[in-house]
Amino acid sequence: MHLEAFHHGPRNNWAYAYDNETLHLRFRTKRDDVEAVYAVTGDKYDWNRTAATLSMDKTASDAIFDYWEVAVKPAFRRLTYGFKITAGSETLWLIETGIFNSEPHPPGGYFEYPYLHEIDVFNPPEWAKDAVFYQIFTERFCNGDPANDPEGTEPWGGQPTTTNSFGGDLQGVMDKLDYLVDLGVNAIYFTPIFESPSNHKYDTIDYKKVDPHFGTNELLKELVEKCHEKGLKVMLDAVFNHSGSQFPPFVDVKEKGKDSRYADWFHINEFPLAVHDGIPTYDTFGFFGDMPKFNTANPEVKEYLLDIARYWIEEIKLDGWRLDVANEVDHHFWREFRSVVKKANPEAYIVGEVWNDSIVWLLGDQFDSVMNYPFSNKILEFFSQDHMDGYSFANSMGSLLMRYPQQANEVVFNLLCSHDTPRALTICGGDKRRLKLAVVFLLTYMGTPCIFYGDEIGLEGGGDPDCRKCMEWDPQKQDNELYDFYKILISLRKKNRALRSGHFRFLQADSNDRRIIYERMDHHLHFMIYMNNQEEITTMTHPCETDDWRDALSGEHVPTQDGQMVIELEEFGYRILYRYLDKENKPELPETRIKL
Amino acid sequence: MHLEAFHHGPRNNWAYAYDNETLHLRFRTKRDDVEAVYAVTGDKYDWNRTAATLSMDKTASDAIFDYWEVAVKPAFRRLTYGFKITAGSETLWLIETGIFNSEPHPPGGYFEYPYLHEIDVFNPPEWAKDAVFYQIFTERFCNGDPANDPEGTEPWGGQPTTTNSFGGDLQGVMDKLDYLVDLGVNAIYFTPIFESPSNHKYDTIDYKKVDPHFGTNELLKELVEKCHEKGLKVMLDAVFNHSGSQFPPFVDVKEKGKDSRYADWFHINEFPLAVHDGIPTYDTFGFFGDMPKFNTANPEVKEYLLDIARYWIEEIKLDGWRLDVANEVDHHFWREFRSVVKKANPEAYIVGEVWNDSIVWLLGDQFDSVMNYPFSNKILEFFSQDHMDGYSFANSMGSLLMRYPQQANEVVFNLLCSHDTPRALTICGGDKRRLKLAVVFLLTYMGTPCIFYGDEIGLEGGGDPDCRKCMEWDPQKQDNELYDFYKILISLRKKNRALRSGHFRFLQADSNDRRIIYERMDHHLHFMIYMNNQEEITTMTHPCETDDWRDALSGEHVPTQDGQMVIELEEFGYRILYRYLDKENKPELPETRIKL
Repeated sequence: MHLEAFHHGPRNNWAYAYDNETLHLRFRTKRDDVEAVYAVTGDKYDWNRTAATLSMDKTASDAIFDYWEVAVKPAFRRLTYGFKITAGSETLWLIETGIFNSEPHPPGGYFEYPYLHEIDVFNPPEWAKDAVFYQIFTERFCNGDPANDPEGTEPWGGQPTTTNSFGGDLQGVMDKLDYLVDLGVNAIYFTPIFESPSNHKYDTIDYKKVDPHFGTNELLKELVEKCHEKGLKVMLDAVFNHSGSQFPPFVDVKEKGKDSRYADWFHINEFPLAVHDGIPTYDTFGFFGDMPKFNTANPEVKEYLLDIARYWIEEIKLDGWRLDVANEVDHHFWREFRSVVKKANPEAYIVGEVWNDSIVWLLGDQFDSVMNYPFSNKILEFFSQDHMDGYSFANSMGSLLMRYPQQANEVVFNLLCSHDTPRALTICGGDKRRLKLAVVFLLTYMGTPCIFYGDEIGLEGGGDPDCRKCMEWDPQKQDNELYDFYKILISLRKKNRALRSGHFRFLQADSNDRRIIYERMDHHLHFMIYMNNQEEITTMTHPCETDDWRDALSGEHVPTQDGQMVIELEEFGYRILYRYLDKENKPELPETRIKL
Repeated sequence: MHLEAFHHGPRNNWAYAYDNETLHLRFRTKRDDVEAVYAVTGDKYDWNRTAATLSMDKTASDAIFDYWEVAVKPAFRRLTYGFKITAGSETLWLIETGIFNSEPHPPGGYFEYPYLHEIDVFNPPEWAKDAVFYQIFTERFCNGDPANDPEGTEPWGGQPTTTNSFGGDLQGVMDKLDYLVDLGVNAIYFTPIFESPSNHKYDTIDYKKVDPHFGTNELLKELVEKCHEKGLKVMLDAVFNHSGSQFPPFVDVKEKGKDSRYADWFHINEFPLAVHDGIPTYDTFGFFGDMPKFNTANPEVKEYLLDIARYWIEEIKLDGWRLDVANEVDHHFWREFRSVVKKANPEAYIVGEVWNDSIVWLLGDQFDSVMNYPFSNKILEFFSQDHMDGYSFANSMGSLLMRYPQQANEVVFNLLCSHDTPRALTICGGDKRRLKLAVVFLLTYMGTPCIFYGDEIGLEGGGDPDCRKCMEWDPQKQDNELYDFYKILISLRKKNRALRSGHFRFLQADSNDRRIIYERMDHHLHFMIYMNNQEEITTMTHPCETDDWRDALSGEHVPTQDGQMVIELEEFGYRILYRYLDKENKPELPETRIKL
């Protein structure tokens, strides 16, 4: 056995409380290197009466490793444990103090999860598991009130630049709520809407005032009420890493220098404030002089920003905060932020903007979720390009799932694109067939999916600012076929819990083959999804024990042939099959886990 | 190269802020598998102007892995980075998104340390790096005031049981302060001293009252003042995981059941309180019914215990808290505890009782240190038994050091034994020569060493309660030679910073050889320590470029022979050499790192 591949850490994604009763343990081995892994468990204070050896599932794999997992419900909230690994006639034990050829006498030197405290359990809001988000960049969604258009507003549908305006506003969103309801999404993520001089509004002037070009505080309140009436949750963008340069405390520092009472609200390296050779004398977002970075360790700043977080939750019954540049703000701040937000609304959903591995924020004390760009990148790489095979794709998904505890995987903010990336359809070279496969995967996978406004009617665009084009409202110019596709897939997801939080497993994901099959399953329904991710027609077969499969979109029976499901697919075709599960024969599943 | 051995995580012990300017990055490879590792670094917002490729040091090794480390001072507090690994003609790059054969275009997909926030830096108190602790179990140290002896007190020096008393008290400690000063220790850790019915006092009745058999609050205050006058810091034991069964709120719950206003102060699983078949109906420490576990998530309990933590710091100018059963208390509690304690005394030293890998508590938001039993176990295994060779011992030390960030290694509470383990001399089979080698290692190694009362005069004892024997004060029965040895070693450590926080490296640690040589070095002094950990005389040689070495204990010049240091050692002998470093030729060292 390859000992150097063995891995377990006694916390984080390797050993965590999934709920108030259950611990998840994970163990890693080299791929295809061992036959079985067992968790040797017990309570250290009474090992003999509590000891149990539990078989672990091979729950995911990537290019190098297999990952094994088991759920344990310790009788007294405490768990001491080690791992027993077998391959052929060889058996090894790995405990905290090392690897042994014979069973080390428990519990000395074993790993520990000392006590399962409810207050430490990472417990994201339930509703986020069932949500389908729609991201709105307000300036470009709909102009509902031309009276509040900024000076120099250009005609709707023109080419976006970093500075121009098209007049989109909250009234426009209000006018289009029924469109969103028809599409089927049940939550909106708004990029910033508070007063700011820019079109993107990531350089705030006043955090308690809706930008006058977008509307009023009253209108926002009314809009959120309407959203709630129509079953839509609302998440706003908290830009707490930095303010804008017109933010009054920063203006004061610019004017008064070190004598400003706000001098310690920012990270000033040298007075007076200036930008030399592109580098500000104060810390900023990137090197943008008009985005001065908050000193979130300053108690005044902290209280100021936390008050804003609380204010909007109480004022408009906000359902969630998306946190801009969340990774560059200190952890003490985010811990207090979570505490304040959850006190104001225990069901609030907190989504950090972090583009990298985010485990340090997803341990229960900071965020519920992060914008899952590593997922976007792999999905788009697989479906928009031709070089990645099913094996590599499944490996990527396995690797990403094993980064986080399962409750994070259930609500991680999965997106194909956003205001910060090129549009998904554009990345797919305008090939709608490729986009559709990516969307089918997004909407039949675990996590909290989000659709960027306009993707559903075929909006294209390169990187910022091109991805921030005006929404197309001319029915003649909307891609209705694509819209209907999105609508059906969203509806399918919302109707079937199995597609949201059911068990996931790849059934086919092979080397040198871009076709994949995967399944999702809960105790009621079993889905099989076939994808032909290539520019040639194909016939895919998979053994099926039962003959009760139906097409999820047409409802028609899809018969098996000699115990095989035989599916013919066009270039970049897909097919979603399902069957009801026998009431007497319900599967015993480790739910919401990936399995290869 | 063995890709499955490569490891880096973007936080914890793998990437952390060492101080307000410096990040440490670590990388792991299979032992002796690669030639060099480089950190490819830059600021993602201006990669071209900030990019730097830094050579990493092989800073530690264990049985399976080599560990590489580099310190980086990013210009703008942000770091994006990857690793370049070379072996022969092969070069690989590892970044967050995977392993590549050619350099992945930076910064996309690289690891990130998004922003170095001072408030998030783990910054233990400076004084702890220079401290030599002495642990006192008050009931057994010295009876200074027979008037407060408990009923049934037995004659000093009798056999300890789990329940008997010998009358030790705070006046006794007061009387012996000059003894401690003479020994040379500069900090005391007291096991609990607050009112409790037991001799160990881990079952508290009143957290704000010194146990009447130990003295009064006034006497404690006076004692701490005296300690401070004499240069001794004082750390008390915070038993916050559980109370005693006579703790008034628990008595109230026992009496009134679910109607008690304290019912939610504990974890009650079933009323009325009872113990069935050895298992209490409420959560406890272990299964001890008279140690009911606090519900530290209850805000009232939290405020109650935090007030105690603050009270003693303010009342007696306490220097630190040792936290009993710290791993079984929730993390939210400890975060608030740290905040309260550091506000009351920014230099307070917080040491958790955790017997296992403690990385989750040593990230800057909870403890400064933990009782380092994994270290004790390996030291005693090496020096008290005959099966471990120098190679395995060095591997154990390397593995332990790589568990924690460097600032934790600098103040981790290193001990050979305590009130919860057999005495070190007893573990050494009464062989003082073996004990001395362990003590030399303890006192010439990094970390914060602690001596258990009486070890220095040859006290022996098996596990609890035998290890809690009365201190021997009869000069005829004290081992004076051992005392002098401790005194000299403590003095040597205190006088020489190189022995506390200097660079550490094994110079010899071979397979099938129980002799070791290691060095410690700062910019002023260079130490070489020779240890012959075996029952036969030996001659050890090591190449030496200079001939200016002296014996640290005698001061005598120890000449080299043809460029070799040749040291003859008796069975279990040791020798500590030193030399002053040439002022013009001071070493450029990665200080306080282990290097093999």
